[in-house]
Amino acid sequence: MNIMSRLLEQIDSPQDLRQLSRKQLPQLASEIRALIIDSVQQTGGHIASNLGVIELTLALHYVFNTPEDRLVWDVGHQSYAHKIITGRRDKMHTMRQADGLSGFPKRSESPFDSFGVGHSSTSVSAALGMALAAQSNQDARRAVAIIGDGALTAGQAYEALAHAGDLSANLLVVLNDNEMSISRNVGGMANYLARLLSSRFYTSAREGSKKVLEKIPSAWEIARRAEEHMKGMVVPGTLFEEMGFNYIGPIDGHNLDTLITTLGNLRNCKGPQFLHIVTKKGKGFTPAEQEPCKYHGVSPAGGKSSAGKSYTQVFSDWLVDMAVADKQLIGITPAMCEGSGLNRFAERFPDRYFDVGIAEQHAVTLAAGLACENKKPVVAIYSTFLQRAYDQLIHDVALQNLPVLFAIDRAGLVGADGPTHAGSFDLTYLRCIPNMLIMAPADENECRQMLTTGFHFDGPAAVRYPRGVGSGSPVQPDLSALPIGKAKQLRQGQKVAILAFGSMLSAALEAGEKTDASVINMRFVKPLDTTLINQLADSHDLLITIEENAVAGGAGSGVAEYLSSIGSKTPIRLIGLPDRFQDQGNHQQMLNDVGLSANGLIDTINRFFA
Amino acid sequence: MNIMSRLLEQIDSPQDLRQLSRKQLPQLASEIRALIIDSVQQTGGHIASNLGVIELTLALHYVFNTPEDRLVWDVGHQSYAHKIITGRRDKMHTMRQADGLSGFPKRSESPFDSFGVGHSSTSVSAALGMALAAQSNQDARRAVAIIGDGALTAGQAYEALAHAGDLSANLLVVLNDNEMSISRNVGGMANYLARLLSSRFYTSAREGSKKVLEKIPSAWEIARRAEEHMKGMVVPGTLFEEMGFNYIGPIDGHNLDTLITTLGNLRNCKGPQFLHIVTKKGKGFTPAEQEPCKYHGVSPAGGKSSAGKSYTQVFSDWLVDMAVADKQLIGITPAMCEGSGLNRFAERFPDRYFDVGIAEQHAVTLAAGLACENKKPVVAIYSTFLQRAYDQLIHDVALQNLPVLFAIDRAGLVGADGPTHAGSFDLTYLRCIPNMLIMAPADENECRQMLTTGFHFDGPAAVRYPRGVGSGSPVQPDLSALPIGKAKQLRQGQKVAILAFGSMLSAALEAGEKTDASVINMRFVKPLDTTLINQLADSHDLLITIEENAVAGGAGSGVAEYLSSIGSKTPIRLIGLPDRFQDQGNHQQMLNDVGLSANGLIDTINRFFA
Repeated sequence: MNIMSRLLEQIDSPQDLRQLSRKQLPQLASEIRALIIDSVQQTGGHIASNLGVIELTLALHYVFNTPEDRLVWDVGHQSYAHKIITGRRDKMHTMRQADGLSGFPKRSESPFDSFGVGHSSTSVSAALGMALAAQSNQDARRAVAIIGDGALTAGQAYEALAHAGDLSANLLVVLNDNEMSISRNVGGMANYLARLLSSRFYTSAREGSKKVLEKIPSAWEIARRAEEHMKGMVVPGTLFEEMGFNYIGPIDGHNLDTLITTLGNLRNCKGPQFLHIVTKKGKGFTPAEQEPCKYHGVSPAGGKSSAGKSYTQVFSDWLVDMAVADKQLIGITPAMCEGSGLNRFAERFPDRYFDVGIAEQHAVTLAAGLACENKKPVVAIYSTFLQRAYDQLIHDVALQNLPVLFAIDRAGLVGADGPTHAGSFDLTYLRCIPNMLIMAPADENECRQMLTTGFHFDGPAAVRYPRGVGSGSPVQPDLSALPIGKAKQLRQGQKVAILAFGSMLSAALEAGEKTDASVINMRFVKPLDTTLINQLADSHDLLITIEENAVAGGAGSGVAEYLSSIGSKTPIRLIGLPDRFQDQGNHQQMLNDVGLSANGLIDTINRFFA
Repeated sequence: MNIMSRLLEQIDSPQDLRQLSRKQLPQLASEIRALIIDSVQQTGGHIASNLGVIELTLALHYVFNTPEDRLVWDVGHQSYAHKIITGRRDKMHTMRQADGLSGFPKRSESPFDSFGVGHSSTSVSAALGMALAAQSNQDARRAVAIIGDGALTAGQAYEALAHAGDLSANLLVVLNDNEMSISRNVGGMANYLARLLSSRFYTSAREGSKKVLEKIPSAWEIARRAEEHMKGMVVPGTLFEEMGFNYIGPIDGHNLDTLITTLGNLRNCKGPQFLHIVTKKGKGFTPAEQEPCKYHGVSPAGGKSSAGKSYTQVFSDWLVDMAVADKQLIGITPAMCEGSGLNRFAERFPDRYFDVGIAEQHAVTLAAGLACENKKPVVAIYSTFLQRAYDQLIHDVALQNLPVLFAIDRAGLVGADGPTHAGSFDLTYLRCIPNMLIMAPADENECRQMLTTGFHFDGPAAVRYPRGVGSGSPVQPDLSALPIGKAKQLRQGQKVAILAFGSMLSAALEAGEKTDASVINMRFVKPLDTTLINQLADSHDLLITIEENAVAGGAGSGVAEYLSSIGSKTPIRLIGLPDRFQDQGNHQQMLNDVGLSANGLIDTINRFFA
């Protein structure tokens, strides 16, 4: 037993934490830091963000009466210290694994996780709801939202701040300012926060004026009165005070004494409070401090290295090649430059690259505006985050039939990241939108071809591809397109035709071999290859569709709709994600569990002929 | 010919406008005002917002070289003067009618309509895209977004301002501040703008200080230097200047001289510019000035008055009754208090009523936070606007299985408002979400029962009802719920079973009588009454589903999925909205045109047996 871990072993809940003296807390912070570095290297996960908030986490639980008081961690990828001191220390090695701890706060996991998070910028809204409920119940309970500077770029955070500032509920917003969202921070808010941090100039200038003015009493008196009315306009904090918050800060987010004293004072304040703290991402772990982007999320040590290229990498290469070929191409990302694979494009074409911050809504309408002027925007976005811009996709892009290409990464299940990040619904929510072209590649080379196809399409187009690597197919360097709406039959079998969408083709081929079924790479979710479907329906006893998307309204549902529209009598079976949220786990295992596999297909075939 | 209309008759394009002297413009404004008041009373539409921006419209087209310069009108319900002077004067009487002018800017209607709008708060994003395209092309073209103070409450506007302020593109944002969105304006931003307007205090205080300080040169020198650095923090405009804009204003938005001079200067400024103008909604039309909410949108004179209660009214009554019965009920609206029918509830239960501004994302997550604390939130929202909160519905509500009731108004086609406001997709985009309970009432009384059912459901629930009145069924005053997942068979026929969802029941009953078909009021889109569907499939030759939603992924698609899952061989036909955006027109006529009618059903039946 290491002498350094003695304190932590006594902490089974925040109740235990509150028994410690303030003097003991820095050691506890060190012990937690060591545990996080150790466990994340085993399990993978977020490291830099978690190391940055250890002191804040301790101070919050030390001051607030959790779980009675509610802590809402924005995005939630900084909740590891919170998990460690709320009774989950011994399960840290199970994080992000099947049946293990979630990488994010999760209501069903612990009463200390007051709100489930994963997507950014929801914390102020949720905590405000909790604060209003407490106010309505005349309950002394407090609600605290802890939000990063990156998350403040999202419109929802602004909507919530503007609303909260107008109310009298006892909400505390802690802005954890590390000058860094996942990538570099973007936009007016980032600049604004930077100026706040360097605003000692204003303060000292004001002090200087005061000193001079104090010599002339009458002038000083006038100036003092004016200054009072200007409070919140001259001192840092103006924006948040304008919104109706009492702004305190910035303070050092690694100084436990300052944090505890300040939070203790704020806990007794009425109405909306705003505390601005400054932290360092990766604090205490030199590699993460130096390269916080690289250490945002890490893969577990000893994890098998990928054989082929990831789909993200295929997109990344295509984007640069197409940008060379077509000067009108514009690349847009909502704060996921690296995750979506835009780094190389951004370096090479800085003038055609726009990271708009965590602002999916703006990203999509910006693309629409560019498309109106004959630019060719490519919006790189995760399936789960495109849900944030659904209205903009319908109203600004599709209704006007504007040529915007959506490169949709992380479509389908996402393994360790769990249900908050799964892309289970995009085929459904896209398929109902008129004018859309929707494609799902079965391998890496096809992904590249589909990106080219969508790029040249005179209307909105989407290519949705899964997380991780594909089958390892060689990617051709040329920029060739596919014929729109044409599927590709890969195997001629008997009785059964398997219509595979995207990532499910390899399972279909395996099942096709074993059962002598026809196998079709459908390629296009919309428009469907109805000519081929007609032929298949006429020549087979059973059609089976398979896709990594909800069955409800998905690609297979589209085939069923078509068959009914032509009055086909050929039976059809739809295989896809069942109607429940899928927990985290090994991606392949999760697919197997729900029958998205060769065995799942074979079972379906056997049941049909039984 | 009225002498007053002589000027307007010469204006067939902004080119003609620019031939006028500045002195002639006030008369032109009067003529346009008269035309709008006259034509809106004939056609219905928005009046107060349009009367408020006549001078601004003239000044913009006078100064900017439209259509080469781009004007993007946020929301677009203030574009009538713009339409009148861009060659559409003689078509104003066709507005909002089939094949007539759209009530909103529409790219296909005129080259002067540079971006299609209808939903709020997209203008800055779109105009920024256009400005960036011009910058990229080294084109001198200007892009202008005209946005109201209400639209500024939406997060997307903030996302776009924060991004634009960080760039050097030549974008002008005109804030049309009339202290009024559709209803009362809400939140920190509204308060902030109000303070800006009353900020002469700061200015005069500053002047006062200056006067005093000028007597003591050295102190004045120090203060002056400090003040320079504080520029934008002391004078009005701080927030927008913090975001990186050059802020000018506030100026009188009805003073053509001031507007033209200021816009002329701004047209020559580089980088992001922000002009704050103050206007009066309904300007020049006394009834609208006095009651701008009432005159936000008006119905055409002589339009037939509604026989029964509108669904909005049914919801309105239910909300008050249920709020009396259950003290935990909380009502939430994103700036549609009157449109969604919350007025009476808001008056009676002000402490349980939250108008969050145009902030759908925040509205839904706020509801999730309240639900965590055992409050019972009801989110009243239009189908088309729920698209704005799709991610929050999935990630914050459904994933956590929180009991939030969505009262979804304007589901299906919406007639005169056209495709920007149609609610054609909700059954699809909701049906794929696990945990959701989804209901569609066939009449007013059932709407009330479903609201009660959803309110008591321990998870997310949605009731989607159409615009306008129902069949006139008497509404029972009690608060009784329906058995979940149970459909109701209304007619026993032969061979054909018509499965009607929501508003389509009356057409189904009519067709059922004429063809001796079974008719079922399905009531629940999710979960489906699978027991009954099994029986129907076993006892009929054909099932037909009918719904006022896209066929793609809709309720009927759910029935087809179920039939395929049980291996049913009974044929099914799906009737719903086809895969294209529907233009504006008479609601009933639009339904007839796409076969959503008794005749459509009969045709389908006849084709099947032909």
